[in-house]
Amino acid sequence: MQIENDLLGYPRLKIIQDPEMFSFSIDSMLLGDFVKIKKNTKRIMDLCTGNGAIPLYLSIKTKAEIHGVEIQEKVYEMASKGVSINHLEHQIHLHHRDLRGIAKTVGKLSFDIVTANPPFFKVPNEPHLNKNEYLTIARHEVMLTLEELIIEAHALLNNGGSFYLVHRPDRLTDILSLLRKHDLEPKRMRLVQPRRNTKPNHVLIEAVKNRLEGGLIVETPLVVYHKDNWTKAILDIYNIGRESYVTQSTQP
Amino acid sequence: MQIENDLLGYPRLKIIQDPEMFSFSIDSMLLGDFVKIKKNTKRIMDLCTGNGAIPLYLSIKTKAEIHGVEIQEKVYEMASKGVSINHLEHQIHLHHRDLRGIAKTVGKLSFDIVTANPPFFKVPNEPHLNKNEYLTIARHEVMLTLEELIIEAHALLNNGGSFYLVHRPDRLTDILSLLRKHDLEPKRMRLVQPRRNTKPNHVLIEAVKNRLEGGLIVETPLVVYHKDNWTKAILDIYNIGRESYVTQSTQP
Repeated sequence: MQIENDLLGYPRLKIIQDPEMFSFSIDSMLLGDFVKIKKNTKRIMDLCTGNGAIPLYLSIKTKAEIHGVEIQEKVYEMASKGVSINHLEHQIHLHHRDLRGIAKTVGKLSFDIVTANPPFFKVPNEPHLNKNEYLTIARHEVMLTLEELIIEAHALLNNGGSFYLVHRPDRLTDILSLLRKHDLEPKRMRLVQPRRNTKPNHVLIEAVKNRLEGGLIVETPLVVYHKDNWTKAILDIYNIGRESYVTQSTQP
Repeated sequence: MQIENDLLGYPRLKIIQDPEMFSFSIDSMLLGDFVKIKKNTKRIMDLCTGNGAIPLYLSIKTKAEIHGVEIQEKVYEMASKGVSINHLEHQIHLHHRDLRGIAKTVGKLSFDIVTANPPFFKVPNEPHLNKNEYLTIARHEVMLTLEELIIEAHALLNNGGSFYLVHRPDRLTDILSLLRKHDLEPKRMRLVQPRRNTKPNHVLIEAVKNRLEGGLIVETPLVVYHKDNWTKAILDIYNIGRESYVTQSTQP
């Protein structure tokens, strides 16, 4: 079952979801918000694009050419449908394939920004994987390891380009060590906490290619909920689309 | 000029300070609080002990044997005087020497806990060091590098022992990478923010010797001030000594 939803907070944009696979998650929006678009940002690649939430979100912030790659056929089809119903074929280019080696096809050293909201768990030694195949692939490092992801991001980026990653804080040592190992120096980091008094469950990282070691800026954490409501910080992330909300009805 | 002060919040304990060298800083108290004493904790080593703030603080939490090492003679003398006026010679043992190689003297693999509040800045390429020699040594990696510190902590710790470090967030990639490189796996981390809406300026880390990689727990950040007051979290750190405060006058 596939359903058409508003991209959270952005009635101008529709996104295709399948509750049996995975629902829209906040991680992608947070990463999209964390991305800094520069004047000379011309090409963006989203690895593990899923249903295309990051490319759709970034299309609000930039006119740059945006690519997305997704290995699962049904998920790729959802992303394609999302691009199509939003009439963004001129800006968002989707690739149905393994992301390993994609730099050779779309151009090594040719991207200013690479983003990724990758599978979150290491493959367990004693596999007790989810029955649901989609969730399994999305949530476990079944198809690629964190290091393979980083290697491909490095191959895609031009000198000084930024790799943006959302991941789990319990992998922070892996993340920072592997980024540095592959000449992507961590320069900005922000932890995301569900509530002010609960541990962070996500971390946002920006690593820049071929930069001097050190100088990581750790920002104030992003808190998602206050009591049962979104915090102002989260509302601000969603409210970029308010203008569209005012000028365009969600029910045409 | 040396002055005798209360160990902040602990009128039972006195500490010797010299405002021309450095004043008592909160970092050491935060690290002392972050340390988890276990039932079988028998020996503790504090590297770069300065005026002995961490050993003094830990003496409130444990009866374990506590060592401290300090290379600067005048600072070492302040620490010794602090131990003496508190009558803690039976528990706190200070060493005036370079910490590199100290494991050979005091016993390799013989400590359950090693703590360090080390020099915070990398030696700059174009040195513009502080005129004040003490501050220079305390604040720059003049006498030892972060990696040398980690190597010595590793040599001192027994299998499963914990290394506790307070440092600057901008060195997080160095810290996590070097700890893992030397088989001290980061397992707990807490960022310290001056205020809720200001960036963290310290990070507290616990790394455990010879443990499986991964499983880092990032705790909620510690916020120091709310408006012009200490937060409850900080007051709680200082209030371990309240009992002493009630039962013993500060003016004998």
